[in-house]
Amino acid sequence: MIMKRWYAVRGPEWDVIISSRVRLARNFSDIPFPSRMSREQGEQVVQRSKDAILNSNTVLSREFEYIPMSSLSVVERQAMVEQHLISPAMVQNVNSRGLLINKDQNISIMINEEDHIRLQCLFTGLQLDEAYDLANKVDNVLEERIEYAYHEQYGYLTSCPTNVGTGMRASVMVHLPAVVMLGYANNLLSAVSKMGIAVRGLYGEGTEARGNMFQISNQVTLGLSEEETIENLKGIVRQLVEQERMARKKLISENRSRLEDRFCRAYGILANARIMSSEEFMKLFSDVRLGINMGILKEELLEIINELMIITQPANIMKQFGQNLGPEERDIKRAELIREKLKTI
Amino acid sequence: MIMKRWYAVRGPEWDVIISSRVRLARNFSDIPFPSRMSREQGEQVVQRSKDAILNSNTVLSREFEYIPMSSLSVVERQAMVEQHLISPAMVQNVNSRGLLINKDQNISIMINEEDHIRLQCLFTGLQLDEAYDLANKVDNVLEERIEYAYHEQYGYLTSCPTNVGTGMRASVMVHLPAVVMLGYANNLLSAVSKMGIAVRGLYGEGTEARGNMFQISNQVTLGLSEEETIENLKGIVRQLVEQERMARKKLISENRSRLEDRFCRAYGILANARIMSSEEFMKLFSDVRLGINMGILKEELLEIINELMIITQPANIMKQFGQNLGPEERDIKRAELIREKLKTI
Repeated sequence: MIMKRWYAVRGPEWDVIISSRVRLARNFSDIPFPSRMSREQGEQVVQRSKDAILNSNTVLSREFEYIPMSSLSVVERQAMVEQHLISPAMVQNVNSRGLLINKDQNISIMINEEDHIRLQCLFTGLQLDEAYDLANKVDNVLEERIEYAYHEQYGYLTSCPTNVGTGMRASVMVHLPAVVMLGYANNLLSAVSKMGIAVRGLYGEGTEARGNMFQISNQVTLGLSEEETIENLKGIVRQLVEQERMARKKLISENRSRLEDRFCRAYGILANARIMSSEEFMKLFSDVRLGINMGILKEELLEIINELMIITQPANIMKQFGQNLGPEERDIKRAELIREKLKTI
Repeated sequence: MIMKRWYAVRGPEWDVIISSRVRLARNFSDIPFPSRMSREQGEQVVQRSKDAILNSNTVLSREFEYIPMSSLSVVERQAMVEQHLISPAMVQNVNSRGLLINKDQNISIMINEEDHIRLQCLFTGLQLDEAYDLANKVDNVLEERIEYAYHEQYGYLTSCPTNVGTGMRASVMVHLPAVVMLGYANNLLSAVSKMGIAVRGLYGEGTEARGNMFQISNQVTLGLSEEETIENLKGIVRQLVEQERMARKKLISENRSRLEDRFCRAYGILANARIMSSEEFMKLFSDVRLGINMGILKEELLEIINELMIITQPANIMKQFGQNLGPEERDIKRAELIREKLKTI
């Protein structure tokens, strides 16, 4: 039986927090970084990483499978990016690259991306501690068979100096529609940026903030422990949660009917449109999600709309309906898929 | 039992023609025109007109009632304008003014509007002959007891010289959304205007064409018989019907998915919005009606959407939900009414 995906489960602070993620960057001590290694060394990294997980004497050995990137089409790889399972960098170059992934799809280990190992744990809602604990456990399993590149003074060594130290990037996806509606987002998020915290779009660095969702993550990996980093990030995220909740209260007390109208229309358009671009979906998604959070739309919608956020992305549509679909055909199939899913409640 | 209203019945050429109307202007030979008559003479016109209908030895005597304008609030009068039962002129000045109206509400006789008698018959679809025949019959009943102001050479005499002759205004409400979408409306309708035909908005002279509906009526009342006038108007209306049907075929062959999307969204917004202005309703009405005509939306919607066209007008909303409603409250009640009606199918 397949467990419910992370996005179909309600986590702590689910009214504002979509997901929590911890990513650890690790490298083999006896092999050059991926940009410098030979093909043969790349294959060694793959073999030894697979071995460390699939042959471990833990429960992980049964829960994981290895997927070589070269076995996937570009569309399938892009679909995995959209599902937050691999990074955009994994799509283009597939040499000696692969993914160790568990059945629940909440643990993924990218092999030979920028670093030899990029281990990621993804949880619904605000669960940074849980994500870190799980990442730590999997990291320990890997470390039983792999000797990491580690420096007494600097910590874990990584391809890019911005990751040296803990090698950890902890991030939280926050949904801030009310803060955006009231025009507070720029000030608030630029204040956050000044506290060693990065604010990014939906798919990480260099991507756009769509659907009023922002990725909040630590910038600093050196000079702070993992626990300090996570405490610091949690503190800031909690402030964002409070700001968003206050903004929602303000909105609803001032404009209840206009908000009801806006959210119900968003639902009506999703449930009836015959052509739906990805951009429009994300706007309507944001309205519907806020409508659910404010008690205006039915709570049962949450799981469906969260799932749609993933499965209506372009490559996911192509994976489901045909890899040769052009943008217009995708928009038609996307609208069809949304209508079908919404009919189920 | 109350018969279905004209707008809830499908008439000939219902894909393009909303309604057909014939209006006859008549005056008493022995009483000055309304603008010149005394109050006492006005009352005489009322009494003698009521008598001619309510005491006639025809079926009409049982089907009609008399409503003095002074017995109605401004909102109730405005609601009757919106139902096409009286003219806007009847709302302001109520002295000695009233309405003889039958149960089916397809025959209405305004007393002491611009002329002593304005007799109107309203039919669904293209039924000009039927409307004229019925108007003629009621006119004959009136004439049994009333001597009309009539001139051998000029015909019926009326307050405004533009009505002298037949005293007849025959008009057809046409729905031309495809012609408008393709940008043909201005050329087409200005060509029509050059053929002695007036093109007007939804509530006659000086009103706006909303929902892509236009009122097409004869300009000339002198020098042509009633039958010639109606034949002439029918010929032009049939051309408009053909133009609109061709435009629809062109649209659907070129843009089927875009049209489907547009019509389904219009329906989705109507069925879900919490605030709906009259202007927005008329735009969505036009899309939904065209969607039904093109076989994209369910045909059962037609009666509901036609009824909504009338009952969502501002004064009708106030009549149903409270005469003191401001515009914003009306927009909320309108959205509520639309949602309820659409739920019934």
